[in-house]
Amino acid sequence: MRIGIFGTGQLGQMLALSGIPLGYEFFFYDLTARKIYDSLNRSRTGVNYSLEQFIDLCDIFTYESENTDVDLLANINKPVYPPITALQSSQERFTEKSFLQKLNIPTARFDLITNNNDITTKISNNNLSFPAHLKTLRMGYDGKGQAIVPNRDCLKKSWDQLNNQPCLLEEHINFKRELSIIGCRDQYNNIIYYPLAENYHQNRILRYSIISKQIFTDTKDLQHTAQEYLKSILLETNYIGILALELFETNTGELLANEMAPRVHNTGHWSIDGSTCSQFENHIRAITGKIVKQPRMLAECVGMMNLIGELPDHSLLFNNDYKIHLYGKTARPNRKLGHITALGPNRQTIEQKLSQLTRIFHHN
Amino acid sequence: MRIGIFGTGQLGQMLALSGIPLGYEFFFYDLTARKIYDSLNRSRTGVNYSLEQFIDLCDIFTYESENTDVDLLANINKPVYPPITALQSSQERFTEKSFLQKLNIPTARFDLITNNNDITTKISNNNLSFPAHLKTLRMGYDGKGQAIVPNRDCLKKSWDQLNNQPCLLEEHINFKRELSIIGCRDQYNNIIYYPLAENYHQNRILRYSIISKQIFTDTKDLQHTAQEYLKSILLETNYIGILALELFETNTGELLANEMAPRVHNTGHWSIDGSTCSQFENHIRAITGKIVKQPRMLAECVGMMNLIGELPDHSLLFNNDYKIHLYGKTARPNRKLGHITALGPNRQTIEQKLSQLTRIFHHN
Repeated sequence: MRIGIFGTGQLGQMLALSGIPLGYEFFFYDLTARKIYDSLNRSRTGVNYSLEQFIDLCDIFTYESENTDVDLLANINKPVYPPITALQSSQERFTEKSFLQKLNIPTARFDLITNNNDITTKISNNNLSFPAHLKTLRMGYDGKGQAIVPNRDCLKKSWDQLNNQPCLLEEHINFKRELSIIGCRDQYNNIIYYPLAENYHQNRILRYSIISKQIFTDTKDLQHTAQEYLKSILLETNYIGILALELFETNTGELLANEMAPRVHNTGHWSIDGSTCSQFENHIRAITGKIVKQPRMLAECVGMMNLIGELPDHSLLFNNDYKIHLYGKTARPNRKLGHITALGPNRQTIEQKLSQLTRIFHHN
Repeated sequence: MRIGIFGTGQLGQMLALSGIPLGYEFFFYDLTARKIYDSLNRSRTGVNYSLEQFIDLCDIFTYESENTDVDLLANINKPVYPPITALQSSQERFTEKSFLQKLNIPTARFDLITNNNDITTKISNNNLSFPAHLKTLRMGYDGKGQAIVPNRDCLKKSWDQLNNQPCLLEEHINFKRELSIIGCRDQYNNIIYYPLAENYHQNRILRYSIISKQIFTDTKDLQHTAQEYLKSILLETNYIGILALELFETNTGELLANEMAPRVHNTGHWSIDGSTCSQFENHIRAITGKIVKQPRMLAECVGMMNLIGELPDHSLLFNNDYKIHLYGKTARPNRKLGHITALGPNRQTIEQKLSQLTRIFHHN
């Protein structure tokens, strides 16, 4: 079976590395350059290929990015997973939040801004509190297309900064922790969940995640609640594959959904080395008609840290503490170049291992 | 860095799957067809490439088979690992056994047969006991080029069967278990060892291996002895990379060396899923100038079973008990098509998991 991936980045690389041992072949398609790749070598030369040729060649399709063109995918007369309905709901922030609201999944309070009138009248009349976040409706990831609005008076200025695009205005949440839940549903309605990840961002890009059996037990109710949220999305969209849901745990212990990603997710990368079945393997299993596997953690605590912008010295990176995953990309500020995973008996050990790397990286 | 692998089989596939996340590129060369491949897809089309072009393209080289042409490798003006001296010692059975003897590593008693006179005079005069094994000096693997000689009178007949090639005659060992030790030495003289594997053959092809912390403790002396044997070979040959040594534990508790393999080894495949650093990753680390990593077992007991000749039904293969590794090869009797790994709390669980598969496969 030939699996066609839209995108040529690290998610596709990790899907292939997990899926090749399952007996599948992988082809990657660059929609902009109209080139196909069948090698994981980064110096590979793509072959000019029309979209039609790519669709002819492969048996099923999946995608790396929630910004993949929905119409394009809808026109493929072969299986495409995750389903396009879920992709659609996640591509546009207002649709996404409204979809979550419809499923009774609590979120921050929000409203839509499409014109000046919304700012002067609608938002002035509603009771959204400030500070708030203004986010463009589309194409936002890693903090792109976002502004913090400290008070109602600054709203116009922030909207101008975002070029007066249609935006979602969202109340700021005073959260205790950022969490995420990842699950996978197969074609036989089996659903598996990974334990909640605790996520820490820097410059709005995921810096590291901590996953721990202990946290998992401490927050048994949170895990249960998060799974229920995810499950309702999986069932509503007749979902196949990995789905991630980003969450806030508020200071009052409430669990609010932030956004969903209909794909393998950065906060699940730990599962390659830290569990008995990675998110990548489960995604491939689900989309190829195999049953998903219930993952077990391989250590009491697992940490995952992104390598962003620059790589540390190899003597540190290749030491005994880490499993390394490099993506073969050229270094560039804020670019995810790879990640490392650390396994340990407790959170303290993991934090100590991760902080070795942070110290080297960041001089703050 | 570009790593060139001589061979296009599953060992190269698994080396690449482990080495790509370390940031390396992989190219596979088929010496017979003179074709190069840069994809892991099995339907890949090779590109005609001269040996010189392949050597120009890559930075360092390794090989899948101990039968790779020594002269060819010796003429490469770039690093080739494992070192050719070790490869040479392992390619020819008499040289290999004499080499082990020189290092005071005990083996079964043996003698060389190159002509009829050796059979009528030399072997008659020595005190080798029967039954014995007659093995061609070169190109033997998975039991090929071997005959059992029940008594001295049958020796001539067995030698005729092997086309009167130069052979090693070796006393039969009454062994309790077949074991193997795998180790890896890097370019800074760090050496790591994997725990002893207990190996079970069928039709002289490795069927399954069991690796267990418990066995490891029970046989602490055996582990220590095996490591000492391996270490002396690693140091004598200034070895870089993974080296495997097959052993017999005799009924009297002695540990005899059978043969060495200067490459990643089938009895080490368990380490992908069952340890914190696989033999494949450690091999790549060693040959690329990185430090080797001390592996830890990820379960109390790990089992590895080869999938030989035919694949079981996918509904069984993809169940929760196994990690699957398929090699993308066409089914053929006695061909290794893949392997599965099972992790568990004890040997009983593992044997039960593996036997589910064996029952399906074999009607004996």
